[in-house]
Amino acid sequence: MASGDVNVKLSRLFRLAQKFNNFYLSGFNKGDIRPFLVDGQQVGLVKSDVIKQLLKYPEVFCVRDCEYTKGIVELNPAFRDYSERTKNLDIVLRQLRSQGIFSALQGWREEYYEVKSEYNSLLKMDRSATPLFGVRKYGVDINGYVRHPTHGLCIWLQQRSNTKETWPGKWDNMVGGGLSVGYGIKETAIKEAAEEASIPHDLVKNLVSAGCVSFFFESDQGLFPNTEYVFDLELPLDFTPHNADGEVQAFELLPAKECIERVFTADFKTTSCPVVIDFLIRHGFITPENEFYFTQIVELLHVPLQSLYTYKNQRQKQEIDGNIGKNCENGHNIQQ
Amino acid sequence: MASGDVNVKLSRLFRLAQKFNNFYLSGFNKGDIRPFLVDGQQVGLVKSDVIKQLLKYPEVFCVRDCEYTKGIVELNPAFRDYSERTKNLDIVLRQLRSQGIFSALQGWREEYYEVKSEYNSLLKMDRSATPLFGVRKYGVDINGYVRHPTHGLCIWLQQRSNTKETWPGKWDNMVGGGLSVGYGIKETAIKEAAEEASIPHDLVKNLVSAGCVSFFFESDQGLFPNTEYVFDLELPLDFTPHNADGEVQAFELLPAKECIERVFTADFKTTSCPVVIDFLIRHGFITPENEFYFTQIVELLHVPLQSLYTYKNQRQKQEIDGNIGKNCENGHNIQQ
Repeated sequence: MASGDVNVKLSRLFRLAQKFNNFYLSGFNKGDIRPFLVDGQQVGLVKSDVIKQLLKYPEVFCVRDCEYTKGIVELNPAFRDYSERTKNLDIVLRQLRSQGIFSALQGWREEYYEVKSEYNSLLKMDRSATPLFGVRKYGVDINGYVRHPTHGLCIWLQQRSNTKETWPGKWDNMVGGGLSVGYGIKETAIKEAAEEASIPHDLVKNLVSAGCVSFFFESDQGLFPNTEYVFDLELPLDFTPHNADGEVQAFELLPAKECIERVFTADFKTTSCPVVIDFLIRHGFITPENEFYFTQIVELLHVPLQSLYTYKNQRQKQEIDGNIGKNCENGHNIQQ
Repeated sequence: MASGDVNVKLSRLFRLAQKFNNFYLSGFNKGDIRPFLVDGQQVGLVKSDVIKQLLKYPEVFCVRDCEYTKGIVELNPAFRDYSERTKNLDIVLRQLRSQGIFSALQGWREEYYEVKSEYNSLLKMDRSATPLFGVRKYGVDINGYVRHPTHGLCIWLQQRSNTKETWPGKWDNMVGGGLSVGYGIKETAIKEAAEEASIPHDLVKNLVSAGCVSFFFESDQGLFPNTEYVFDLELPLDFTPHNADGEVQAFELLPAKECIERVFTADFKTTSCPVVIDFLIRHGFITPENEFYFTQIVELLHVPLQSLYTYKNQRQKQEIDGNIGKNCENGHNIQQ
């Protein structure tokens, strides 16, 4: 590889890492972004376009303006439990959906996402709505790879079905999926491996947990503070994945060099790029010798999302200081 | 492994990740920590105990108080070049050393560390002084490992010589070393592999670049904003490393389970723990199933050091805003 080549490549890689962290790097400090609290715990971040709509439902959302520089959005703390919170939020979301204001809600799935604090479940909302509330999402991804005798390290990619709600027709990791209630992390990976790529039991037993990537992307659908649990699976040369659930239209095995080129195209799902880049770094294809921004890119594959969802702690500190504001912009009394 | 066991382990791991990030997590926001600028570029962070001493050398250091909430420490911008900066700093450091104020300087090495901005070298200082100025340090580490037929994944550790300036007698990764002027990253790893562990050429050719870890530790020696480039090296069962340069007193091969126990002891070099933990995560020994704080720990192995050394950018922004303060606490005029 000519050194001119490498120079072009490294800056593309850094730009890509900046792209899937566009909210972490620049969106977060722009405009009115407020913590979203449920039962006193921060579970999301809400942008001003969403706040504007939520203000129309003062019986469900409390938008407070009077603490710190920026205020907060809180689900009415008078809702007593999981089901009451879920029911009231769902009514609002279905109304917003029918009004066609948010493109994210056009992908309504009738499939719930569990919103949790560190230790307990607080409510569930339709999966399509999570970007509006900047709720942290967790998924699993399997890097299926082959050590080819002539082509070296090769990676299996899937092309998503054209009928998928999100990123239709885009190239993606061999296997991936969101975590669902009641399934463990490795269990989800094994389930998705069977459904998406028909990986048999005697191969999937070689699955190796290899870490996780975290990034914070923003699109016109909303906010994506995502953490993906990453698994590697070395596959034999003679195995070809095939889809079992209609969600994948093709699989292709690419040498690492072609794989990274694919990742740079608009045909690759942006939020799946971090997993491929992490894989190519861990397996010695992207190195500090061929990538000038190596350390910056590794940091951008593991951004400190935990530090952006700590409002509760700050607030508790303020309560200790005794100067927390309790009045609510749209009329609630905070009951807790 | 009983589940009670695992619970104890996970919290120990999270506490350890917090320990080697004690400055990132709590030190950074406590007390008077100021950016250290050379030639207008931030290359370090200086604590108040050091600032107090630097104020005694107004011809060398300018401590300014009048921007933002916290001020800055600047090497006199009147020094024209690399050698003038190096010479003047060295005089101060040797005086401080003779006064016995900083324990870090008791480890004086007569071995220079190159202080760089993103693109050029600004000065060099004795390696022992870098913690006083919070200069980012870069090193390489090799995880030497064996896939043992009965013990599974096993890791070679070294015990540092009792005569080493830093962390004498402590357990450490098989091979490690700081980057030196004129040596590449992989080149340094290969050189250290030969010197520290006598790894022959036909084995070291299997070295795989596997990423990097970044953390920010503080001890009574000062600040350690470290980035370690990580390499994995699978070794044959019948190979035993032996030291060639007198810096290692022993090598030991430990099964992964015993290795992580060793890492938890006070006998392990704190700033080498991140490399072992990263290795055990990448190789599926520490997983989201057996470690509740998995994502937090992965984030703490890759803290965003780049975001703590950006004063130049902030300052440039302020200059655009036209409200930068130019007066200097101890009498310099800023010439630039």
